[in-house]
This record gives sequence, structure tokens and C-alpha cells, in this order.
Amino acid sequence: MRNIDENTITGEVISRHQDAQNPRLEEVMTSLVRHLHDFAREVKLTEAEWAKGIQFLREAGDITNDRRQEFILLSDTLGLSMLVTAQNQRKPEGCTESTVFGPFHVEGAPVFEHGEDIANGAVGEPCYVRGRVVDRDHRGVANAAIEVWQADAEGFYDVQRAPEGEHRARGNFKSDATGAFHFRSILAEAYPIPHDGPVGKMLRALGRHPWRPAHLHFRISAPGYQTLVTHVFRDGGKYLDSDAVFGVRSSLIAKWVRHEPGPAPGGTTSAGPFYTLDFDFVLANVA
Amino acid sequence: MRNIDENTITGEVISRHQDAQNPRLEEVMTSLVRHLHDFAREVKLTEAEWAKGIQFLREAGDITNDRRQEFILLSDTLGLSMLVTAQNQRKPEGCTESTVFGPFHVEGAPVFEHGEDIANGAVGEPCYVRGRVVDRDHRGVANAAIEVWQADAEGFYDVQRAPEGEHRARGNFKSDATGAFHFRSILAEAYPIPHDGPVGKMLRALGRHPWRPAHLHFRISAPGYQTLVTHVFRDGGKYLDSDAVFGVRSSLIAKWVRHEPGPAPGGTTSAGPFYTLDFDFVLANVA
Repeated sequence: MRNIDENTITGEVISRHQDAQNPRLEEVMTSLVRHLHDFAREVKLTEAEWAKGIQFLREAGDITNDRRQEFILLSDTLGLSMLVTAQNQRKPEGCTESTVFGPFHVEGAPVFEHGEDIANGAVGEPCYVRGRVVDRDHRGVANAAIEVWQADAEGFYDVQRAPEGEHRARGNFKSDATGAFHFRSILAEAYPIPHDGPVGKMLRALGRHPWRPAHLHFRISAPGYQTLVTHVFRDGGKYLDSDAVFGVRSSLIAKWVRHEPGPAPGGTTSAGPFYTLDFDFVLANVA
Repeated sequence: MRNIDENTITGEVISRHQDAQNPRLEEVMTSLVRHLHDFAREVKLTEAEWAKGIQFLREAGDITNDRRQEFILLSDTLGLSMLVTAQNQRKPEGCTESTVFGPFHVEGAPVFEHGEDIANGAVGEPCYVRGRVVDRDHRGVANAAIEVWQADAEGFYDVQRAPEGEHRARGNFKSDATGAFHFRSILAEAYPIPHDGPVGKMLRALGRHPWRPAHLHFRISAPGYQTLVTHVFRDGGKYLDSDAVFGVRSSLIAKWVRHEPGPAPGGTTSAGPFYTLDFDFVLANVA
């Protein structure tokens, strides 16, 4: 087809992939092209604005590497990540809700025994975390794989500041026969998502802040259960109502209890104040 | 706001930038977020599909550099570039139409005198191009800046194969007092857009070919006139009805005349066959 205009082009682009081998790919791309074109027509996108968009993607690509994932930050801050999580991870009544995965998970983090300290040099006040992995009838799920990761007191994950390959405030556990687990880490604090790149520029231009409320990340998987990707948010913290990535769930907000110096979990004694967090995770059966 | 679901999230994301300093940016981003979310809901995008999309953008960023612009190729192949050109470059009756700019233009190409050969080693049969830059009343536009660029006989632009900074089949001219110009180059041939990256993978998965019909690129600017970004397409060539980037305009298709060896333009003699192309460009006044 020749002499395509800004209206007839949409049908022409879609007609070109009508012979795609994969019908789902065709379905997704047809909807993507329709909405992309509708957007450009609706705002009558100018050539200068188009060029800015291309430059934005170029800059996002330039800053992205194995430790910095600008396109995930973009998806998170535009609400796409939480939307996709919400529409795919609706949990049965009584099960722990999911939230965004985020860009800071690392495969193959070190394995710890219960009670060990995963901080590995990450700065922050001590925090003792204890919980159980259970099913909907609150029976313990034994031997569940528990992955934990969090930012330090200054708001940085290890991948943002530690030497390549060094893990801090990040570890993997197995639940015991009763589904229980416990470990020591540091107090989670609110932090800004990385905002020294194009996504940060975008947020500033939109008058948005880059902060996330204090949270711990968990991924918990066990045979026969749906893998749970979630956070536990710190009650009373800032930004619970304006999370830069829209991930807060009331059911995921828990109390971090502050304790004065003295006896601490595991028969230890803490010279400074410390915190305890108790949280149980209820897994949904595989449908 | 907490407990956002896949439907309520759209309003929440948009409400976050209601205080943007730039109302146009707010307008564009509001429409972008609406359409992005509508797309994800409409196809019920899965987490695996989302991850594939993030990976696609990562790969596009990884292959992009100063000589390879994968995000422009993506925009071109999805029809966005032609849509934006069409809705911003509607020309008055009788003026030469615009088409896509493409990813292969280079600023600061060498300046040539009329009649010179811009090939500079680019392979292809000789082609002598002659034309005029005129206004709507067909009065010559003197001293217009004319930029020309094209692929060689094997379908490659200099930026794809020549040493960095070496210009081939690319040059800048000024029209003379009557608006006329002429130069020697090589015969333009159909070529595939770069398809060794994620965009090529996308086209293959969609059952689309990556070919563009043979064309010469022109950008022509002169004070008091709208800058014209266009192609001249080669009549009778392949892919005129299935241009991978949807750029063909009937009014931009011209006859390349083939000549047997012998006397050639500029008083030269050609040992082999050669081509001539005559094409005039009609500029629109600045509104």
C-alpha cells in the first residue's frame, strides 16, 4: 500500500503480521500497534517530541547493564509492573498478596542457616526477622525456598554500591519442618529508586518523587504452591501512600518493634537498640 | 493510595503528575500511561511476556550506538515514524511530499560542487542526478541547502560498512541562482533495514520482510521555506507496495533512465551503462 496517512497506517501495519506463526504474538502486537498509534494521534505527537522519546530510550539503554535495569525502573514508575503483577497474581482469600519484583533481585545469593546475619557489612541498626511459611490452613510448609533482599540504612542495595559479586543484606534460606525461619539483618529504611538516569529526569519533570517506603523483599517457592514475590512494608514509615512504584498493600504492612539495648534473639546481647519483625507468609496452592 | 489493582492504578499514576510544570508533558504522559495500561489489560499481558518486552528493550539498547539506532528502526517498522511525519508534514497542494527521515542521516557530510561524484568508493552503477529546487509557482529557490544520502548497490550505507567518519554516497550541495543542482552518484537499490538485532528478530517472528524499495534520501532547507525531508523512489523496483517502514508516496516515485555506454552528462564518456534521474523539489513556504 502506498500513500498511507496517519489514519490508514494502523491497519496497514497490522495487516503485515497477519501471517505470524504465533497467534498470541500477533494478538499482542496488534494491540500494541493500535495503542501506540492512538497515543501518537491523540496527542498529535510532534517530530521534536518523537525525537525526545527516541533519545530517552537511547539514554535508558546506555545506562542499563547487569546491575542497573533502567527499563524495569521505567515500567515500575509508569505503573506497568504493578499492573501486570496485579492481573496475574490475584491470590485466594487469606493468602499473602504479591507485589512488584523490582530490579534488585540477584540469582544465586548466599545460603544461610537460621539465625545467621545476612547483613555482611551492610550498614543499619540490627533487625531480627522471624516468621513461618504456611498454607491456607496455616499448616507449616517445610523446606520452602526463601529469598530475602533489602536496601541498607542509606537506601542502597549491594548491587548499587558493593564490589561486583559481593552480597550484602541478601540471602537464601529453607523453612524448617514446621515452616519456620529466622535470621538477622538490618533495619529497612525508605529509599529513592535510582534517579541519576533518564527515569529520574522523567520523575523530576513530572513533579514526582523517587521514594519507596521501607520494605523487605521476599521470594518464596515450594513444590505444589504458587511462587510468592512480595514485600513486607514497615508500618509508620513515610511514602506508604506515595510509593514511586505503586507496590504498597495494606496486608503487607507490618510492625517493626524497637527494643532498647540488652538481651536479643538467639541468646545474644545487643549493645545498641535493635528491632524485631514477625511475619508469616501464606502460600496459595498451585491451581 | 494503597491496594491499587490493575484498574485503579491508571488513575493513580496519572494523579501523581498533576503538578508537572510543563502542561504539554503532562498531557503527553497522561495519554501514554492510559494507552500503555489499556494495552496491558486488553491482552492481559503475562509476567513472562512483560519480561520478554523488558529483554527486547535491553537488547535494543545494547546494539544501539552512534552508527546504529535500533529504537528508530523500531519506530520505523511499527509505523510510528511515518505516522508522526504524516500528521506533522502535510504539505500544501503541489508541494513535494515528505517521508520518513530514517536512521542513516549524518550531520556534516562533505560539501560538493555541482557535477562532482559523491560515491567516494561506494559500489554501484553510475547515476547522474539532476533537478531543481522551486517554490509553488515553480520559481527557482537559489542557494537552498541540499543534503543527499543513499545505500550502495549491496544495500549498505557508509555508516554500516565504511571506516568511522568516512562518507560514501553522501554529500551536501547548494542550489544555483536558478534553483538547479546536479551530481553524480551510484544507482540506488532496494535493501533490507539492519535486521541482525532485536528489530530483525521481531520482523521474522511477525512474518514480515525487512526490505525497503530503492530510494535516494534528500533533506532540503532554505530560508522562508519549510525544510523538506523526503525520498525519491525508483519506479519499477520491488517492495514499493510493502516498504518495511511504510514510507512510499506515489508522488515520490520517479523514473531512473538507463543508458548504454557512451556519452554521459558533463561531457564525460561512460565505459559502462549508466542511469540518469531528473527530479524537481517543490518547497512549501513557512506558514
